[in-house]
Amino acid sequence: MKPLAVSMGDPAGIGLELAARVWAAREGAPPFFLVGDPDAFERACARIGAARPALRVAQSAAELAFKTDALSVLYAPLAIEETPGEPDPVNAEATIGAIARGVAAVRAGAASALVTLPIAKAVLHTADFGFPGHTEFIAHLVKDDAWPHARGPVMMLAGPQLKVALATIHTPLADVPRALTRERVAHVGRVLGETLKRDFGLDDPRIALCGLNPHAGESGHIGREEIDIVNPAAATLRAEGWNVSDARSADTLFHDGARRSYDAVIALYHDQGLVPIKTLHFWDAVNVTLGLPIIRTSPDHGAGFDIAGKGLARADSFRAALKLAWEMAARRSRA
Amino acid sequence: MKPLAVSMGDPAGIGLELAARVWAAREGAPPFFLVGDPDAFERACARIGAARPALRVAQSAAELAFKTDALSVLYAPLAIEETPGEPDPVNAEATIGAIARGVAAVRAGAASALVTLPIAKAVLHTADFGFPGHTEFIAHLVKDDAWPHARGPVMMLAGPQLKVALATIHTPLADVPRALTRERVAHVGRVLGETLKRDFGLDDPRIALCGLNPHAGESGHIGREEIDIVNPAAATLRAEGWNVSDARSADTLFHDGARRSYDAVIALYHDQGLVPIKTLHFWDAVNVTLGLPIIRTSPDHGAGFDIAGKGLARADSFRAALKLAWEMAARRSRA
Repeated sequence: MKPLAVSMGDPAGIGLELAARVWAAREGAPPFFLVGDPDAFERACARIGAARPALRVAQSAAELAFKTDALSVLYAPLAIEETPGEPDPVNAEATIGAIARGVAAVRAGAASALVTLPIAKAVLHTADFGFPGHTEFIAHLVKDDAWPHARGPVMMLAGPQLKVALATIHTPLADVPRALTRERVAHVGRVLGETLKRDFGLDDPRIALCGLNPHAGESGHIGREEIDIVNPAAATLRAEGWNVSDARSADTLFHDGARRSYDAVIALYHDQGLVPIKTLHFWDAVNVTLGLPIIRTSPDHGAGFDIAGKGLARADSFRAALKLAWEMAARRSRA
Repeated sequence: MKPLAVSMGDPAGIGLELAARVWAAREGAPPFFLVGDPDAFERACARIGAARPALRVAQSAAELAFKTDALSVLYAPLAIEETPGEPDPVNAEATIGAIARGVAAVRAGAASALVTLPIAKAVLHTADFGFPGHTEFIAHLVKDDAWPHARGPVMMLAGPQLKVALATIHTPLADVPRALTRERVAHVGRVLGETLKRDFGLDDPRIALCGLNPHAGESGHIGREEIDIVNPAAATLRAEGWNVSDARSADTLFHDGARRSYDAVIALYHDQGLVPIKTLHFWDAVNVTLGLPIIRTSPDHGAGFDIAGKGLARADSFRAALKLAWEMAARRSRA
């Protein structure tokens, strides 16, 4: 299997130092190469007190060679040297370029999957980056690639004890009820179900569907979205053969006992899914993009400008993102 | 200090068997008396295989005597014998009467606080019970009592690691944004702050306020309620001397490290608060009614008709409700 591609993320954030930390203690980590600026990576190694790394810089994916004694770097140079904690839009193009080159490397078969280090949307927006975030940008880059399955992107957060896919993501709460349709919920169910079978090796995945309202609406006494939208979507999915629950009360869905009743949850909005996953897995949850021709994971945290360059950033989530991308890619390659 | 009053709840639910379980292993539990039907309590003891209890039945709160060798029961008889798992509206009046007599006992100084065992709203509604639940009914019963403090009811869930008060409770999600006003959020803050000082012994309680939108709105990019409602309410509270945060992103507010930064959270809607508390404290969270002249707690679960009479119900939350009511009452009595 080819190594993983890791895009450097915002060079003023914690991404490069996470890559440096994992490279410095790489035993047990899946093989990967960096897509980014080799000098910036060297500086990140120095900042965390790691040895100066041996690097093999490749100008194109075709030139990449993978050896364990040196980190391969697919060249995506910065415009100016980074200042930790102070993101600079001048480097936005390089940041975006590293993502695009990473995607291209996976599409070209030079990498098994893409793991993206964090970017800052606010910085990229000043550079006319016309996408809400990584996920939509990557989906755009692969939109013309063949994919004979339900097409995402759907966002999932995955930790050792819980996996949650989101039916809406960065939607203001007041707009969530309008944004939910039967088709949207059913589509997320299909993308999630197919992913759990194909990439997670579950033969008949059990999917729990959250209600929107307190107590999942109490039979219509506290809102009707369960009756009008969520349960009909569940019925559609069951008719297609998926093992999906009707709308369940979200508050009683995430404790130990309840988690044994499903393999993954569909949450209807951001905090409904991210509150429980980050309560349980603040350090080691992974963001996974479902339903695309390429596999992409990322650590479940931001660019951390407040702690960048200080050696404080924990690599747990990035390590977990590497591991999960590797496992998913292994399942796809065996299929 | 006077004992706690425990209202029996729906006799077809798990309430009486929880009381029987705690009475049978009462060492370490605070002193309490039951408000309910003594024969039904005897049947509940028999169902869980406990010894036949010694009971002292009192017709009025004035007759109550507290001895450790027998359980005092303030008489609130059923209309017909209960059938576990099959709630009967014929007994609704007795169920409601037990709550009212329990409240009266606390108001008369015969009990330190009230702990209510679960009722089923659907059953009571058929009996023209004109209140959404316990909390509003109890607030109604004490509405004319003097209370020189911010007046609730405000609902709080409390567990060993987390306390969450709710700004809205059983509101359909689509109605939550409209229901939130600066005054409402500020009022909940005052009731919560006063309770933490008065009943929980915290001199300068630290209160974390949730945002409504993903990432607390990201400075207005994902909704404006934080800017227009939540942060102004926080500013009002701070001007009054309360230690309250601006709107914080709910998803990163409930893990171990974050919990060390506050004493309690104000969640803006049901699932935002109940998802994390039930993820962390599914078995031992307690429902506390804040801002009333009487102290009232209850277990954080329903009447459990599906398991009633089978000896399966766990008493953790009821025990915790007794303990918390006792501690709160002790603080008020010392003040």
